[in-house]
Amino acid sequence: MATKLLALSLSFCFLLLGGCFALREQPEQNECQLERLNALEPDNRIESEGGLIETWNPNNKQFRCAGVALSRATLQHNALRRPYYSNAPQEIFIQQGNGYFGMVFPGCPETFEEPQESEQGEGRRYRDRHQKVNRFREGDIIAVPTGIVFWMYNDQDTPVIAVSLTDIRSSNNQLDQMPRRFYLAGNHEQEFLRYQHQQGGKQEQENEGNNIFSGFKRDFLEDAFNVNRHIVDRLQGRNEDEEKGAIVKVKGGLSIISPPEKQARHQRGSRQEEDEDEDEERQPRHQRGSRQEEEEDEDEERQPRHQRRRGEEEEEDKKERRGSQKGKSRRQGDNGLEETVCTAKLRLNIGPSSSPDIYNPEAGRIKTVTSLDLPVLRWLKLSAEHGSLHKNAMFVPHYNLNANSIIYALKGRARLQVVNCNGNTVFDGELEAGRALTVPQNYAVAAKSLSDRFSYVAFKTNDRAGIARLAGTSSVINNLPLDVVAATFNLQRNEARQLKSNNPFKFLVPARQSENRASA
Amino acid sequence: MATKLLALSLSFCFLLLGGCFALREQPEQNECQLERLNALEPDNRIESEGGLIETWNPNNKQFRCAGVALSRATLQHNALRRPYYSNAPQEIFIQQGNGYFGMVFPGCPETFEEPQESEQGEGRRYRDRHQKVNRFREGDIIAVPTGIVFWMYNDQDTPVIAVSLTDIRSSNNQLDQMPRRFYLAGNHEQEFLRYQHQQGGKQEQENEGNNIFSGFKRDFLEDAFNVNRHIVDRLQGRNEDEEKGAIVKVKGGLSIISPPEKQARHQRGSRQEEDEDEDEERQPRHQRGSRQEEEEDEDEERQPRHQRRRGEEEEEDKKERRGSQKGKSRRQGDNGLEETVCTAKLRLNIGPSSSPDIYNPEAGRIKTVTSLDLPVLRWLKLSAEHGSLHKNAMFVPHYNLNANSIIYALKGRARLQVVNCNGNTVFDGELEAGRALTVPQNYAVAAKSLSDRFSYVAFKTNDRAGIARLAGTSSVINNLPLDVVAATFNLQRNEARQLKSNNPFKFLVPARQSENRASA
Amino acid sequence: MATKLLALSLSFCFLLLGGCFALREQPEQNECQLERLNALEPDNRIESEGGLIETWNPNNKQFRCAGVALSRATLQHNALRRPYYSNAPQEIFIQQGNGYFGMVFPGCPETFEEPQESEQGEGRRYRDRHQKVNRFREGDIIAVPTGIVFWMYNDQDTPVIAVSLTDIRSSNNQLDQMPRRFYLAGNHEQEFLRYQHQQGGKQEQENEGNNIFSGFKRDFLEDAFNVNRHIVDRLQGRNEDEEKGAIVKVKGGLSIISPPEKQARHQRGSRQEEDEDEDEERQPRHQRGSRQEEEEDEDEERQPRHQRRRGEEEEEDKKERRGSQKGKSRRQGDNGLEETVCTAKLRLNIGPSSSPDIYNPEAGRIKTVTSLDLPVLRWLKLSAEHGSLHKNAMFVPHYNLNANSIIYALKGRARLQVVNCNGNTVFDGELEAGRALTVPQNYAVAAKSLSDRFSYVAFKTNDRAGIARLAGTSSVINNLPLDVVAATFNLQRNEARQLKSNNPFKFLVPARQSENRASA
Repeated sequence: MATKLLALSLSFCFLLLGGCFALREQPEQNECQLERLNALEPDNRIESEGGLIETWNPNNKQFRCAGVALSRATLQHNALRRPYYSNAPQEIFIQQGNGYFGMVFPGCPETFEEPQESEQGEGRRYRDRHQKVNRFREGDIIAVPTGIVFWMYNDQDTPVIAVSLTDIRSSNNQLDQMPRRFYLAGNHEQEFLRYQHQQGGKQEQENEGNNIFSGFKRDFLEDAFNVNRHIVDRLQGRNEDEEKGAIVKVKGGLSIISPPEKQARHQRGSRQEEDEDEDEERQPRHQRGSRQEEEEDEDEERQPRHQRRRGEEEEEDKKERRGSQKGKSRRQGDNGLEETVCTAKLRLNIGPSSSPDIYNPEAGRIKTVTSLDLPVLRWLKLSAEHGSLHKNAMFVPHYNLNANSIIYALKGRARLQVVNCNGNTVFDGELEAGRALTVPQNYAVAAKSLSDRFSYVAFKTNDRAGIARLAGTSSVINNLPLDVVAATFNLQRNEARQLKSNNPFKFLVPARQSENRASA
Repeated sequence: MATKLLALSLSFCFLLLGGCFALREQPEQNECQLERLNALEPDNRIESEGGLIETWNPNNKQFRCAGVALSRATLQHNALRRPYYSNAPQEIFIQQGNGYFGMVFPGCPETFEEPQESEQGEGRRYRDRHQKVNRFREGDIIAVPTGIVFWMYNDQDTPVIAVSLTDIRSSNNQLDQMPRRFYLAGNHEQEFLRYQHQQGGKQEQENEGNNIFSGFKRDFLEDAFNVNRHIVDRLQGRNEDEEKGAIVKVKGGLSIISPPEKQARHQRGSRQEEDEDEDEERQPRHQRGSRQEEEEDEDEERQPRHQRRRGEEEEEDKKERRGSQKGKSRRQGDNGLEETVCTAKLRLNIGPSSSPDIYNPEAGRIKTVTSLDLPVLRWLKLSAEHGSLHKNAMFVPHYNLNANSIIYALKGRARLQVVNCNGNTVFDGELEAGRALTVPQNYAVAAKSLSDRFSYVAFKTNDRAGIARLAGTSSVINNLPLDVVAATFNLQRNEARQLKSNNPFKFLVPARQSENRASA
Repeated sequence: MATKLLALSLSFCFLLLGGCFALREQPEQNECQLERLNALEPDNRIESEGGLIETWNPNNKQFRCAGVALSRATLQHNALRRPYYSNAPQEIFIQQGNGYFGMVFPGCPETFEEPQESEQGEGRRYRDRHQKVNRFREGDIIAVPTGIVFWMYNDQDTPVIAVSLTDIRSSNNQLDQMPRRFYLAGNHEQEFLRYQHQQGGKQEQENEGNNIFSGFKRDFLEDAFNVNRHIVDRLQGRNEDEEKGAIVKVKGGLSIISPPEKQARHQRGSRQEEDEDEDEERQPRHQRGSRQEEEEDEDEERQPRHQRRRGEEEEEDKKERRGSQKGKSRRQGDNGLEETVCTAKLRLNIGPSSSPDIYNPEAGRIKTVTSLDLPVLRWLKLSAEHGSLHKNAMFVPHYNLNANSIIYALKGRARLQVVNCNGNTVFDGELEAGRALTVPQNYAVAAKSLSDRFSYVAFKTNDRAGIARLAGTSSVINNLPLDVVAATFNLQRNEARQLKSNNPFKFLVPARQSENRASA
């Protein structure tokens, strides 16, 4: 029932940095005693009017161990994913396309005001107001907190493909380990419902409406909204075709306000694919990429763009200040509340056009997002990583210290090996585009690209996921005293020295390395 | 075994604001796949010499999903609920009556000193000292942390009725999900023991003494207390009648010191019921109510009351300072420890005489308590809400973002509807006084009062529980762009506008609204 | 895969004090409904070349309830426990002996540099660098975080005995409740593997190599390390005798650099046993003990020892400053990162030569370590206590407020009684050296020593474990108002007074007390 503003609560989370932790639940007994991992494709597909949603079975043993559910939505041109919320936090990666998304934070103000009245036929003038609308583009990570209503829309020609990880063992979820979608509209089954029965539980009773309004009696809704029966029927999705589904086509497209000068830039989106392979070589492309990113970041401030272009130096100054003290903006008249959760950054680009964290032009690149980059992740307890590897380049054996990792291949294919605590190979195979592999916490993993460009996104179940490398400079082996290495591995000191120092690379090993060795 | 002061630990929690989180455990697989919720009455009743304890079966599916145990204690005049502690935090709501309660915080000083020697017959003079004793009254929420000894006493004629929620999935509980009461005295079964067997576990072995001293051998206790066998027998509850139970009658009443001028005020308690129905109309009553609250709040400082009345302005000043920096009192000579956990506020009034958070004279009122009002709740990870609705007034469909809610009806009856993620009605029925209904996290719920005054208390399993409203001003629907609403619900723009703006109320919708609509 | 420095994450934990909580998972349904506890010995023993590892079955009901796994390693002279990491945090108590240990924190610099080239035969000069190496001695608690590689080495004649508690229900462990050891080397079974099958799960598949490198294909490792096949074979433990095991003999001993003047002091270690019984009486011994501790503490700064001896007053000054602002050292040139997690204190002595927290020369002594003493424990959510009792001295009935306690007897034997919430005796027996007893949260416990000196270490599953005493000065009984005590226990006021005040001791009751009473 009614209560304090959640917004207040959230803002405190951010102010105190670490106030509101979502920790994770452990799997049940034996759920992580996996003999064999598999690179899995989605096993179910639900078509909608405007696209489709594919899901991986969350009861699969490797997802049960990791405590997550994976799904992939495809939105055609002018398609709207209808608003819904989840009982667990979600991290969404935009594999392809551009568009708009929105979230509704209870208690936050409606800060977007339509410039003109949206309808003039009637006597009174109506000016629509709503909460912030955001732009997303390929390579973005979008963070959706538990219970927060989320929608997205594709205004471009390229289909949008969005891969979503739901962390069902997050302590933000007080229900059981079944991923649930609560749709605000429609008359279609929520995408994970079909797995409920398999999970051993009894399926929740037959549904007649499928959205959260359909279960209320008409009179309740008529009173609550003060509208007529016709509108209530629509609300409850009564006379609606079930085939419309979770993603609907919008005839003529949505008209959503957004700061000017934007539309032009997003037309570029679909051109990215063909020139990706050589993008490290082409410096100008990179600059464009990072400028694009910067520009998008500025959108967060929602000031008219034309003002922006005036003084670039001033811009830089502002940027710096903002970097160190987000949430302490000096603009007068704003209260602390609006400056915190209500304006929190909800997306970050980690795609190929972002500035990488680990980069070796001969091997590949890696970009991560943690709660240090995107503070809202502190609340979700999730992070992510985007990587790409050149042909035959490898990333060295390593393990996740404090997280499970769900690797989803975006492009190309690679050979991966995963080893458990008993030294057994639980995976030795190919991971190809569109498949997902779970690497449980502390399991050792290594990979070598089989394609000219293998790229992936890895979702991690900790907002500050860390890894320990087992080979190369600054690796675990490297950090042990030489004598300990020699005694541990039963090696001569000069052999131990080789083990410690022969590989001069930190994480990404170029193909040459192995070729050199072979020819040596 | 022995160790650092817990007090120190607790004080750090408070100082650091967010140091000691209690997070919650998820239910086990499928435990929240509820097809049908029920408005439940207590199903067991244990009579005691001075009152009775009623319990709801914690193995009931809806309580298992919420991870809580509910019980209700009734204390007659001069009845003492004997000291006990629990393996999980408790939130107690005083449905009726006034009295005293105490908690024992290990490591905190004995700050109450009896003014005279309590016994003069013997040669040496004995001056009793003990930890703080608190007053409670109708409408109070009392927060009892895990493992902290708690007792309460009714010194008035009106029976005390106290409803207690135990959060057994709190991570403060490191034992399993069985609510446990550890009694310091007596020879009676702890109230949740009978459910233990049902839970599938083997019942813990036959008991001969039932309190935590009864399991020790006599010589251990003789040594530990340095007392004779007779006293040890009493300690172990040996020759005691089992019927005495958890609540005992105190012949002649307890003599407990407490600041002066207090007794008089509490006589009013039993008069509250008859004038409750019109309390919003009668402004003077309200003022009295809030003054009473202020006065009680001042008791927390434990200064002689007569000093207080002197300068009211001074009083107000002090109040303000205290508000912003509780725990940083300027009184010299006090150390940081005593100012923090040892003097932490443990109760707050959210009853009809408190100042409401949401108020509509034609519809009703709602008052919440979160860890922002009562910081000790940050540690318990619980909050609560008290509400009352006029006849035919409703609260709009909404859902709990981050908590389960256990609604206990205090007075009157209402029709409630609860909807799950599949759009199914899992509850559509009446909730009447004395019954409890669980509304799981994210499930949609709405209610309409069927009585002149329906009132309830809702316990929430998060210290900053938040809700999202689905209808009315500033609701989720309201915060979506008009075009998104239209496309989502397949509505014309002018219909979407009605959906967004027809209901001008925020949470509580007066009866008129529905009558108007009907007649329109 | 690759990601931000964990180090950064950790340092934030420390900077924010309370940033990175590890909370604990609850046991599954009924797992704590224990009818009878047992004082358990290890039930399995794995011999290694250089020592042995004994384990307690983690599936034993009392360990399942507590959510921990217990093991004991014995290292002979010149034996190295090979590097491994665990999926859960560990607290290791050094029951006997002295030696070296190291941990590898990914992202931290290699701060120990070998003074000369370790090999001169080849043309290029090689200077070994590695992360910090630490000294441990009898009575130390060592904190090993989840996923952090740990090794230890015994350079003395006295065998090292190390008792290790692994907190498998820590939320740092995202896998299931099976304790896992990931060995970097060797060809032996990890010590808890044999219990996996018993746990009801299928045993992970047959192993051929048993260390985390053995599951990778040779070519991956050749590429990753850029070494030849012979070295890879050693890495994978291929041609190794399985009998070598987790603890290997190092011929001629390891040469590990460490600050000068150290070796001499550690020779004393094995002399401690015979003079322990009278140590409270012999003041000089004590002083020596505490000086030794101080000296060891100073080692943390890793400055050449000979500099130290110059000005003792200066030394004292520095000490004081350091106490209040650890991690804010003024040495220039060090960055914040290195000053935090990379140099975090990982051990603390709580043995008989440390300064006790509770001390009664006639009864015994108790020393605790919590996250206030050893901040890294905040991250592990574990603490510990070392105690010793004189013959017939007792510690009074009490309970753990917020933790399970696993008591491991080091020396002598004592009679313990443990009582559950139903007043039943779940343990009444002897606990003798080498055995372990679990005391679940909130269960009442008391003990009386049967030996001249009974000593124990208690591991506690909370970083700020607290207890509530049930008898003696400042106990729960003592903190209740006299009238409440009288009414609760059905006593006369003068009897209640005796109960409150007859025992003048706080925690440890000397033998005399009981003798006096008996003769009175």
